[in-house]
Amino acid sequence: MDLPTSPLAPDRFPDIPAIGGVRVSGISGGLKPSGARDIFLAELAPNTAVAGTLTRSRCPSEPVVWCRRALAGGRARAVLVNSGNANAFTGQAGADAVRASVEATARRFDCPADQIFVASTGVIGEPLPEEAIAGCVDQAADGLLAENWPAAADAIRTTDTFAKGATASVQLGDQTVRIAGIAKGSGMIAPDMATMLCFIFTDAAIEPGVLAGLTRTAVGRTFNCITVDSDTSTSDTVLVFATGAAGNPPLPRRSRRMAQFAQGLESVMRDLAHQIVRDGEGARKFITISVKGAVSRKSARRIGLSVANSPLVKTAIAGQDANWGRIVMAVGKAGEPADRDLLGISIGGTAVAVGGRAVEGYDETPVAKHMAGEEITVEIDIGLGGGACDVWTCDLTEQYIAINADYRS
Amino acid sequence: MDLPTSPLAPDRFPDIPAIGGVRVSGISGGLKPSGARDIFLAELAPNTAVAGTLTRSRCPSEPVVWCRRALAGGRARAVLVNSGNANAFTGQAGADAVRASVEATARRFDCPADQIFVASTGVIGEPLPEEAIAGCVDQAADGLLAENWPAAADAIRTTDTFAKGATASVQLGDQTVRIAGIAKGSGMIAPDMATMLCFIFTDAAIEPGVLAGLTRTAVGRTFNCITVDSDTSTSDTVLVFATGAAGNPPLPRRSRRMAQFAQGLESVMRDLAHQIVRDGEGARKFITISVKGAVSRKSARRIGLSVANSPLVKTAIAGQDANWGRIVMAVGKAGEPADRDLLGISIGGTAVAVGGRAVEGYDETPVAKHMAGEEITVEIDIGLGGGACDVWTCDLTEQYIAINADYRS
Repeated sequence: MDLPTSPLAPDRFPDIPAIGGVRVSGISGGLKPSGARDIFLAELAPNTAVAGTLTRSRCPSEPVVWCRRALAGGRARAVLVNSGNANAFTGQAGADAVRASVEATARRFDCPADQIFVASTGVIGEPLPEEAIAGCVDQAADGLLAENWPAAADAIRTTDTFAKGATASVQLGDQTVRIAGIAKGSGMIAPDMATMLCFIFTDAAIEPGVLAGLTRTAVGRTFNCITVDSDTSTSDTVLVFATGAAGNPPLPRRSRRMAQFAQGLESVMRDLAHQIVRDGEGARKFITISVKGAVSRKSARRIGLSVANSPLVKTAIAGQDANWGRIVMAVGKAGEPADRDLLGISIGGTAVAVGGRAVEGYDETPVAKHMAGEEITVEIDIGLGGGACDVWTCDLTEQYIAINADYRS
Repeated sequence: MDLPTSPLAPDRFPDIPAIGGVRVSGISGGLKPSGARDIFLAELAPNTAVAGTLTRSRCPSEPVVWCRRALAGGRARAVLVNSGNANAFTGQAGADAVRASVEATARRFDCPADQIFVASTGVIGEPLPEEAIAGCVDQAADGLLAENWPAAADAIRTTDTFAKGATASVQLGDQTVRIAGIAKGSGMIAPDMATMLCFIFTDAAIEPGVLAGLTRTAVGRTFNCITVDSDTSTSDTVLVFATGAAGNPPLPRRSRRMAQFAQGLESVMRDLAHQIVRDGEGARKFITISVKGAVSRKSARRIGLSVANSPLVKTAIAGQDANWGRIVMAVGKAGEPADRDLLGISIGGTAVAVGGRAVEGYDETPVAKHMAGEEITVEIDIGLGGGACDVWTCDLTEQYIAINADYRS
C-alpha cells in the first residue's frame, strides 16, 4: 500500500550533524519487494558504550533475544537493522539468520560477536533465508558515511509515511556533545517499553552503567508515554550508543553535567516519540493528554493511557466531538484511584467538567474550534494528589482500519 | 443515526414465556428525542430474591451507586430502567433523579425503597430533570403484562440494532423452572464485569446468597469473556431476580439441582452475551477465541482478551487476512506466561503455526474460505498447562469509526 505522508508530519527531515565515532548507511538489500532501502548499518568507534530497552513481549523476535544477551557486555562496534521482515516467530531459521548476520558483521569490523547489535521490523512469521541480511553487510559497510542520516532513517521504515530523525547538542562545561537519533513506527505502537525501533548516537563519553540508567529514565518519560493502538510489538528496541569521541571526562552519576545530558537525551527521545504518534496509522490529530492530581506519577500515566487507548475517546476526537463523557468512562476503567465527584476535565484550555458534573453553559465556541484543529489538548485533574504525567496519542480514523485490514494482502 | 440491523443478528426475537411472579412493560417516556420506547419496568412478586454484578468503574453512574447499596438487602419488588440518558457524571441532580425514581416506584408498589432497582443507559454527563423518569412510573406500571418481553427489550436499546432476549427452562426433579433475560449493549463493551445492562428473571425459589454465587460464576464465564472495544461503561449492570413462584424447595448449595439451574442460567447469559457481540458496532464477523494450554483459566482468559482487544488482530480479520503474526504479537503482550517456541495457532480448524513457527505449506484454501465467512474461530494452544477459556469478540471495521465519530453530533 502506498500511503500519502501524514498531515501531521514535520515539514522536513531535520539537519543532523555528524556524530564523532559514528558512520551510517542505508541501502537496498532486496528484502522489500518494492526495492526501497531496507538495510541500515552503523559503525561505532571501538569501545563505544551501549544501553537499551527491549520489548516486554513474551514472544519476542530473534533479534530482541540476541540484543538482550549482548547488552550485558555494555560495548558496541556496530548495529545492523533490516526492514521488510520482523524475523519473529521464525523458529530455528530465525535464530540462524541472526547468527549469520552477527557473524558477518563481526568479521567485517573485526570485533567480538557480542558487540554487534541487530533489529528487524516488518511482517511477523515469514521465514528469512539465513544469508538474506548477512549477505548485505559488505555492501552496507561500503556505503558508510558520517552524515548519511536521511538514508539511514529511510532504511528502517515499514508503514511509516515519513523518515524520523532528531538531534540535540548539550554544553558540558566548555565542551559540546552531540546527540542524534532515528526511529521508525506508526502502528503496533503501545507503551510497554519502546514500542518501535529507535537508535540514538552521541559522541559523549559515558560509562555503560550510567548510560543504562539515563536510557531507562528517558524511555519512561517519552516512548513509554505514547500509544497509537495499544498493540505492543514483538520487536520493540531502543538502543543508545555513546562513542566517547568528544573526549569529555566520563559523566559522573548525579552530577549537574549528567542532568544536562539527560535533558538532551530526553528531548531527542521525546521528539522521535512525538513523530511516531504524528505518523500513527490514519492519524489526523495529535493528542496530548495531561493528567494531574493523581495519587502518583505511575497512576497518572495509567489513567492517561487508559484515555489514550480508548477507541471511543479516539473516535470521538476523530469526529471533532468534545465528548468528555467518554473521557470520564476511560478514567473510570483505568482501575486507578479516582473520585467521580472531584474530577475536572478541560479541552483546549476550556473547563468542560468540574467537580463531578458538566460546567453549565460553558462556551462551546472555543472548544469546537479547538476540536477542529490538528493539535488537541485534554487536561484531566483527578483532584486527589500530586501525581502528573503527559501522554501522547492520535485519533482513530477509518483510515487506520483501511491500512490494517489490507497490510499483508 | 439510524443503523441497519447487524448482519450477525439472530433471525428474530425469541419466544419468551411468562415467568411466574414477573410482569414487564416497555413504554415511551420522552427521553429519546425520536419518541422510541425508553422506559422498562418490571414488577416482581413480594419476597423476590435478587443478586447482581455491577461495573468496576471508579466513576460509576448514580444508578450503579444505588444498586450497590440496595443489593445488600437481597430482595426486590421492581426494576426501573431508562435508555436515552446514562445519568452518569450528573452531580447532585443525578442523585436526586435516582431518589425521585426510586421513591415513585416504591410508592406505586408499596414497598421499602431498597427493594427498587434502577439502571440508566445513554449519553454520559447530560443532566436529567428530577422527574423525567419518576414521572413515567405510573404509565409504565399501567402497561405491565406477563409476556411483554419484546417491548421490554426494545425499551433498553441505545445504539443496539436489534432487541436482545433469551430463555431457558430447567427440570428440577418433577418441577420445571423458567429463566428469561433481556440485555442491551453494542459499544463500550469490555469485560470487567458485565459491560452492559442485563436483567434476568426466573420463577425458581433461590435464597439471595445462593443466587449471588451462581450469578458471579455465570457472569465470569459469559459477560466477562466478551469484548467489543475494550471500553468499560460507567453503568454496567447485571441483575438476576428469582421470584420463587414455581414453588420448588429452595435450591441447596452444591446440589445436583443447583448445578442444573446454574447451567440454565449460564446458557441464558451466554446467549445474551453472544447477541451483544453480534451487535458490536460495525461488526461483520463473530469471532470465537479458544485458548488452551495456559497455566490457569485466568491466564487463558487474559490471553484471549489480549487477542480479542487487539485492533491489529480485529482489523486483520475484518480484512479476511489470516494474519497469525498479529495473534502471536497479542499473545506476547498479554503479560501472561507463554513460550514462543511452544505456541500453536489454528484458524477455522487448520493449524497455521506450530511450535514457534509457521506450518510450512499448509493448505491456505480452507483458511481463506473460513476467513471469508461470518463465524471465525481462532484456537490458541499455549502449550504450558491445563488452563482454558473461550472469549468472544467481533471484527473492527470502518463502520465502528463512523458510528462512534458521529454518535453525539
